Amino acid sequence: MDWKHAINEAAARIEGHAQVTPVMTSDALWDRPVELKLEQLQHTGSFKARGAFNTLLAGPVPEAGVVAASGGNHGAAVAHAATRLGFGAQIFVPEMAGPAKIALIERTGAALTVVPGEYANALEAARAYEASTGAMQVHAYDAPATVAGQGTLTREWERQGLEADTLLIAVGGGGLIAGALAWLQGARKVVAVEPETSCALSAALEAGEAVDVEVSGVAANALGARRIGGICFELAQAHLGESVRVTDASINEAQRALWQTHRLLVEPAGATALAALRSGAYVPAPGERVAVLLCGGNIAPDPLG
Amino acid sequence: MDWKHAINEAAARIEGHAQVTPVMTSDALWDRPVELKLEQLQHTGSFKARGAFNTLLAGPVPEAGVVAASGGNHGAAVAHAATRLGFGAQIFVPEMAGPAKIALIERTGAALTVVPGEYANALEAARAYEASTGAMQVHAYDAPATVAGQGTLTREWERQGLEADTLLIAVGGGGLIAGALAWLQGARKVVAVEPETSCALSAALEAGEAVDVEVSGVAANALGARRIGGICFELAQAHLGESVRVTDASINEAQRALWQTHRLLVEPAGATALAALRSGAYVPAPGERVAVLLCGGNIAPDPLG
Repeated sequence: MDWKHAINEAAARIEGHAQVTPVMTSDALWDRPVELKLEQLQHTGSFKARGAFNTLLAGPVPEAGVVAASGGNHGAAVAHAATRLGFGAQIFVPEMAGPAKIALIERTGAALTVVPGEYANALEAARAYEASTGAMQVHAYDAPATVAGQGTLTREWERQGLEADTLLIAVGGGGLIAGALAWLQGARKVVAVEPETSCALSAALEAGEAVDVEVSGVAANALGARRIGGICFELAQAHLGESVRVTDASINEAQRALWQTHRLLVEPAGATALAALRSGAYVPAPGERVAVLLCGGNIAPDPLG
Repeated sequence: MDWKHAINEAAARIEGHAQVTPVMTSDALWDRPVELKLEQLQHTGSFKARGAFNTLLAGPVPEAGVVAASGGNHGAAVAHAATRLGFGAQIFVPEMAGPAKIALIERTGAALTVVPGEYANALEAARAYEASTGAMQVHAYDAPATVAGQGTLTREWERQGLEADTLLIAVGGGGLIAGALAWLQGARKVVAVEPETSCALSAALEAGEAVDVEVSGVAANALGARRIGGICFELAQAHLGESVRVTDASINEAQRALWQTHRLLVEPAGATALAALRSGAYVPAPGERVAVLLCGGNIAPDPLG
């Protein structure tokens, strides 16, 4: 697959629909300067809007509209994109998504069903809905249009003057990091950061194939994919620089540091990549310039709720 | 006074000490695109760090260190700058600063005294301390070094590609807007936005001279100056485009919109300028491009507190 071409096309497609998110260089989060991309400021609070808009705009979208299963962020993004573009949307979320993310989806006006259990259970319900209605399934991470949409983030970051040798990116199902790997093709080092308790990618890399993992922990409603996406796994085998795991405590610490240092309020998943740097789970070489992607801000409870 | 020169000097002085804060253009906060500067991501959560660093670096700082009175944000900035530069600092804050801002100052390690009442009472205590110890008073808004420091913000924004015809800026004691007026010298329209219940600048403009006002309302701990600064008043008479007032309800609405739309969590003062646009207190002409300055993020209660 010609990923560069697909991502360039996605970028043209979503221009004016997705938010160009700001970047900054912080001197206060680590021993050396760290480039940040503030993707939690994206519409619906996470990078997921990129893949959602790309998928819906690439179309065609059937009469029955779209359906998505989501730990919360992807569902909100699909609901937002569909509503903005005038398509019907049915979103299935697991209970573990929590009230803040569920309220976020409700505000878009899309149809919403809360499913007992975790992400995999919501995915099952979404597949049943797809089969019975003919609605178009928008996969949260393992579809080319989704990955190409997420790839626009790294493309945009480079156009904003990204200098880093190394990018730290949180991984759940792998759509976001797949987009980065697909765009960069090894041109910069990419480090995958997973919570110890939700580590589908590192488990797959160890096993040599995608395997099921148990998911739990503070970031589970965003990163708690039971199995890594096939597209991500293939790209990771080809281009991933390193894979590290972080504890829930280090995620909470990084989340607090972002708020106390820069008034950046992110959800645990949004602080997971930074946790690798601050906790020492990833130790850059002397002189290695690092960048950290903040990917989601849908914190619970809602601070203004 | 040659303000352009003073602000250029301040910018050179504070480089590497103050954070370069990001900008973004939002399509989702108003009918037309709005340029935003995210100055709430500055060290200690507000623009005040610019004036504080400039004042302390311009020096000389006496043996007795520095003293400041503050509704919270200026005190935190002076405490942070003094601590970073190795000077002693004594901060006086009024009770109305609230626990979140008081905790922020405590974290810097500076000496802190909480004074019953409002900002003017804290200023009185700071002046007594200055007189008895010889410490250097760092005024929150009405000193040339403070205004020049705040002026670096607008200078920086222009260097980041600011396109707007008109800047909306919240006003308390007037240090921030004075810096903008001093830098721009009429080159772009500047609109002063004050809460109806803390409007020292518009009251002064109506009276033709600085007058005392009562202060209250949701943004009072940041914007509740009893009297506009003399430097600001003079610059406003020369260069201000327009002065508008907004209700507390519209401030709260703008604060919620920033959070729900872009996961930007700001304090009420930080949302005051946007409130003028969203509430219609300021109505731009057709084709007029507008920019809104988000100036503070020290919200209470602390969402991670």
